[in-house]
Amino acid sequence: MKYVDGGICAAKGFKASGTYCGIKKPIVENFDPSIKHKNDICLFTSDVLCNAAAVYTQNKVKGAPILVTKANLEKSGNKAIAVIANSKNANTCNADGVEKADKMCELVAKELNIPKEQVIVASTGVIGQVLPIEPIEKAVPILAKELDYGKNEEASTAIMTTDTIKKEYAVEFEIDGVKCTLGGMAKGSGMIHPNMATTLNFITSDCAISSEMLQKALSEIVKVTYNCLSVDGDTSTNDMVSLMANGLAGNKEITCEGKEFDTFKDALYEVMANLTRMLAKDGEGASKLLECICSGAPDKDTAIIVAKSVVCSSLFKAAMFGEDANWGRVLCAIGYADAEFDINKVDVDLRSEYGTVEVCKNGSGIEFSEEKAAKVLSSDEIYIDINLNQGNENATAWGCDLTYDYVKINGDYRT
Amino acid sequence: MKYVDGGICAAKGFKASGTYCGIKKPIVENFDPSIKHKNDICLFTSDVLCNAAAVYTQNKVKGAPILVTKANLEKSGNKAIAVIANSKNANTCNADGVEKADKMCELVAKELNIPKEQVIVASTGVIGQVLPIEPIEKAVPILAKELDYGKNEEASTAIMTTDTIKKEYAVEFEIDGVKCTLGGMAKGSGMIHPNMATTLNFITSDCAISSEMLQKALSEIVKVTYNCLSVDGDTSTNDMVSLMANGLAGNKEITCEGKEFDTFKDALYEVMANLTRMLAKDGEGASKLLECICSGAPDKDTAIIVAKSVVCSSLFKAAMFGEDANWGRVLCAIGYADAEFDINKVDVDLRSEYGTVEVCKNGSGIEFSEEKAAKVLSSDEIYIDINLNQGNENATAWGCDLTYDYVKINGDYRT
Repeated sequence: MKYVDGGICAAKGFKASGTYCGIKKPIVENFDPSIKHKNDICLFTSDVLCNAAAVYTQNKVKGAPILVTKANLEKSGNKAIAVIANSKNANTCNADGVEKADKMCELVAKELNIPKEQVIVASTGVIGQVLPIEPIEKAVPILAKELDYGKNEEASTAIMTTDTIKKEYAVEFEIDGVKCTLGGMAKGSGMIHPNMATTLNFITSDCAISSEMLQKALSEIVKVTYNCLSVDGDTSTNDMVSLMANGLAGNKEITCEGKEFDTFKDALYEVMANLTRMLAKDGEGASKLLECICSGAPDKDTAIIVAKSVVCSSLFKAAMFGEDANWGRVLCAIGYADAEFDINKVDVDLRSEYGTVEVCKNGSGIEFSEEKAAKVLSSDEIYIDINLNQGNENATAWGCDLTYDYVKINGDYRT
Repeated sequence: MKYVDGGICAAKGFKASGTYCGIKKPIVENFDPSIKHKNDICLFTSDVLCNAAAVYTQNKVKGAPILVTKANLEKSGNKAIAVIANSKNANTCNADGVEKADKMCELVAKELNIPKEQVIVASTGVIGQVLPIEPIEKAVPILAKELDYGKNEEASTAIMTTDTIKKEYAVEFEIDGVKCTLGGMAKGSGMIHPNMATTLNFITSDCAISSEMLQKALSEIVKVTYNCLSVDGDTSTNDMVSLMANGLAGNKEITCEGKEFDTFKDALYEVMANLTRMLAKDGEGASKLLECICSGAPDKDTAIIVAKSVVCSSLFKAAMFGEDANWGRVLCAIGYADAEFDINKVDVDLRSEYGTVEVCKNGSGIEFSEEKAAKVLSSDEIYIDINLNQGNENATAWGCDLTYDYVKINGDYRT
């Protein structure tokens, strides 16, 4: 398996486009195209109909685009050919939300001459503000006209909100000697504590695989990637991962478990884990990526719960911002994790490119060099290695430090 | 029922004292008592043996003082006469922790000539640093000598860590025509997300009530007061509430449910709810108290879960710091609360001394004056009124905003 460029356009037969339509401030009559605005809407399509799978937020408050996408995939029998997504407005908690999200699909369907239910729609941004449809009506024909194989960046930048970098990743792999490609893009910086899915994530592949196996792979991998990510403990109303596979690689369709399915899942893990890492590192206001690896767990769920508990601790996150080896906060967070295990067997190390410090052995503190710890924590990628020493399962969770900038960004997000 | 001064010394027969012993920086030979240090250790006692009850942290990592107190109360048949508590060091995750906590009880027992198991011990501060016993050995005789009825403040200041104000509250009430008093003190500012109990909380009463009914009252009231408080989502390793009743008021002992027991519980609620409010308002770095009242719930637990979910949301807390009426974040937090209810019936108002703004009706946003909302949110006490409109139960949760200062305080707590 190897990394390739191209994001959602890396796989065969996927085109994308993005533009600025002015969802917050509509394009006025005398719009000056020479002024560069950040894209706020994008479209991407497959040359042929795809098998599709998706996972959605478990928040009871669901964005209208979630409801419409779910209904569409049910109607189409899990087939999709196009995705439209916008930033700047989440179209959530609006009385006319479903109508507007449905209208977005209708506009795309009409322009591309496809059934409406083969369109996936997603929105991200402020909750509870009415989505203006006029700018989108103007944008869709432009987006359709500009679709191209190399325009993945036009799309990946259009879905950014407080994100500071675009997030794309793709890999090449082989199924039965046939080269396949799988790539994705993601957005998300705050309101990130996915449960089932996260923020907006779109993955495309040219691998031939049935809708059923696609959904199975997605559900399995989302549990150990996006669902192990937390920026701030807030599960968004609009979280979604969609996965489309158009089969253009030409491999024999994967329709059951086995070696080929495992290879596909490995590729999916590689792309989703890397996007997850990018989301954590670009968490709102973050200055450090935190990666917590819990090993020696009696079962997988315990490993996940413990690792997540640590990256969710506000106190530990603030300590990492201050580069303070306050490992007691790691142990505190392990202690309130909702799982059964013996705390007196737990070892904790802090690690980075600058070395490793053992801080806790058998649940008690051990002496360590504060000087060395300060050096280790000065890195912008910190690893917290937890060994429960009571089993063979492990899991990784991703998060980021808690900084002044997180507070600043979220103190005046709407203004 | 009326408020009275005196905190833990408000009830008849309770004496207290506090001093500086230098747990972090031991008193050196040439200690200059003219230099004023903040108290770091305190003692309080009852003139006669008390019935006692306690609740402890549910964190798997338990501070050594928790283990020792629990064992003592079991041995003494839930009787206690003295409490010793220190700040600056939590005596948690130390190999010799239990030995040291036990030693603290022994020192008090020897000085007061009482059985060791009638002593309650509590510690708060940094986790995982060895507790120096020498300063405590020097302090206990001084504390014993200085015990007095009016010295509640000496004690309530000794348990402060990052607290900016001391927290005391007491009330007078009548049981069968006999005047009784119940008062308490609390400490806590960060690592506050009690589950079962919170931080350090000590309550004293001269009411005559059996140990069994005392425990019953405490367990009931803690659920709707301290356990509905969150500063940062971190459940401490040393959380404890102890409740001692010495019977000196002279009422007929309460030994079963009924009118008298309800009156006692009302007094306990009054003291504990007010201490909870003080803890929230003095949350680390907090500039605003957040009080979320969830009404119209199908059951009590749902009301508690929803109200807590809102005061725990980092995004909403940051928005309140920025005085931004970003009510979508309230709805988002209601939506991910782990309870069953219909989100489409939910109304939300934001309220303060400056008025009320309705922001959400039947789960959807409604138009409101941003100007009025800004005025309402400029207060330092914000009320979030949530009506689920699907039942008659209600609950209150307390929290605070998320500020630059929270990050600052926790970025370099140990240094």
